[in-house]
Amino acid sequence: MSARLSSVSDYEALLDKYDTWMFDCDGVLWQGDRLIEGAVDVLGLLRRRQKKVIFVTNNATKSRKSYKGKFDQLGVEAHVDEIYGSAYAAAVYISSVMKLPKHKKVYVIGMKGMEEELHEEGVAFLGGMDPADCTLEPFSLADFTLDPDVGAVLCGLDTNINYTKLSKAFQYLTRNPGCVFLATNEDSTYPVADGLLPGAGSISAPLRYALGKDPISIGKPATTMLDCIKAKIDFDPKRTIMVGDRLNTDILFGQGGGLATLLVLTGITSEAEISGPDASSIVPDFVTQSIGDLRSIGK
Amino acid sequence: MSARLSSVSDYEALLDKYDTWMFDCDGVLWQGDRLIEGAVDVLGLLRRRQKKVIFVTNNATKSRKSYKGKFDQLGVEAHVDEIYGSAYAAAVYISSVMKLPKHKKVYVIGMKGMEEELHEEGVAFLGGMDPADCTLEPFSLADFTLDPDVGAVLCGLDTNINYTKLSKAFQYLTRNPGCVFLATNEDSTYPVADGLLPGAGSISAPLRYALGKDPISIGKPATTMLDCIKAKIDFDPKRTIMVGDRLNTDILFGQGGGLATLLVLTGITSEAEISGPDASSIVPDFVTQSIGDLRSIGK
Repeated sequence: MSARLSSVSDYEALLDKYDTWMFDCDGVLWQGDRLIEGAVDVLGLLRRRQKKVIFVTNNATKSRKSYKGKFDQLGVEAHVDEIYGSAYAAAVYISSVMKLPKHKKVYVIGMKGMEEELHEEGVAFLGGMDPADCTLEPFSLADFTLDPDVGAVLCGLDTNINYTKLSKAFQYLTRNPGCVFLATNEDSTYPVADGLLPGAGSISAPLRYALGKDPISIGKPATTMLDCIKAKIDFDPKRTIMVGDRLNTDILFGQGGGLATLLVLTGITSEAEISGPDASSIVPDFVTQSIGDLRSIGK
Repeated sequence: MSARLSSVSDYEALLDKYDTWMFDCDGVLWQGDRLIEGAVDVLGLLRRRQKKVIFVTNNATKSRKSYKGKFDQLGVEAHVDEIYGSAYAAAVYISSVMKLPKHKKVYVIGMKGMEEELHEEGVAFLGGMDPADCTLEPFSLADFTLDPDVGAVLCGLDTNINYTKLSKAFQYLTRNPGCVFLATNEDSTYPVADGLLPGAGSISAPLRYALGKDPISIGKPATTMLDCIKAKIDFDPKRTIMVGDRLNTDILFGQGGGLATLLVLTGITSEAEISGPDASSIVPDFVTQSIGDLRSIGK
């Protein structure tokens, strides 16, 4: 059972126990373009207490640099090297784990942020934001030239998703021997200010269905993302806590990496999913209503 | 084990046993725009022997009327009332089985053929080929007005698939109480002259994934399609044979309806899928290389 946190001493005990605080962003620090009340104060408090603060997001539409712009715009202090996104982790995975040879390329179903991260890691790509691929013009297989150097297809949230991209990706995955099927993350939905839209997992779903095969997923809950963080910074998993709003991504990610987990109820997960007869089998160590609750320490 | 047909007497015995011949089209009578050798002769032979001929296709991009155009163009005799498509069956299902009230509407992820069949059955719809829905412009949930009269979402192969259509369909399915999730068919791939493209099942896959729920599927292998044929014509299932090229649609459809089944190898299914260690668990009654093989009778 999760421990419910509510008193100043509960929060003080948590701060004593954990040196590294990993945060999911959407649904934890903000909801769409609206800051969660108290989030800035709590991050400030953690920094004053010398805690290491890391932001771990599955959002693959933005590069770390442009994601920092979102922090800036909302007045949340963050540094690019504290931000880990699934597009960045995917680019690192392709260059450092898969070790895709330099002459090989990635076919991208994704947006500018993914292109930027691949570019920074020196990974060649095609598709993505290319106007020839962002089209509703009919796709003709007869007019398509298969590039034999495409060694992977990387799928993330792409609001330009269309039949041409899906068809090209399907050709690479079925006709280029060894072509690897990758997804930045498998979030079923994507929270915006007024509700939910289909998420990155929904964008790779057509290929998953057509191929009868799941992609290698990079983002939370996969440990690939944590491996990527480990490669860049030092932290003791036993003294690290993952704060998130989604059981099947954030909390599972923390548990898979041996971290403590704190669920907040300002995002996707509702009270009914953690208590009562229909509760999820994924049980966080701690639960609090909002990250803003930790402000009580500072008072 | 399937009976392999090869001699004139094999084919003669088949003709004696079955009065109604149901044919899948793509991969059986033609491949893309190329007629299967002998198909026209065999259909002529069946008609001369007073057999009832029915064409059963999962293709939902064309109405029966426009599908007849494909037969005409390839020089294959066919009449509109012999053609059953999954768009037609879906429209009949919505009006006659679901009995969607007249003031209710269907949100369409599909093409002109689907719109035509819904129109003929008197079912109101939105989405589909509407230029406002066939767009790669960003979708804003804040600017979207939910139509409370949308009582179903119908998904078929749609080469205009995009994030706006997926987002609208997702809103209807999650926010309109009782809104029914329908798919014309679940074919994972779609055969064209030069290969395979993602099929109708891939188009509904994003919604399936985002909702965590499967659609009610109308086309083969679902028996809904057969119910639709039964409502229109008389046939004795015991004296009916389904001829197809796909085990998991055509052959399963025939078996589910208590029909005999004949697999041809001119389409999706390869020899390895019906014999040897990796053979499918779906076993047709009869197998022949091509529908053209039955010509030997006429010689």
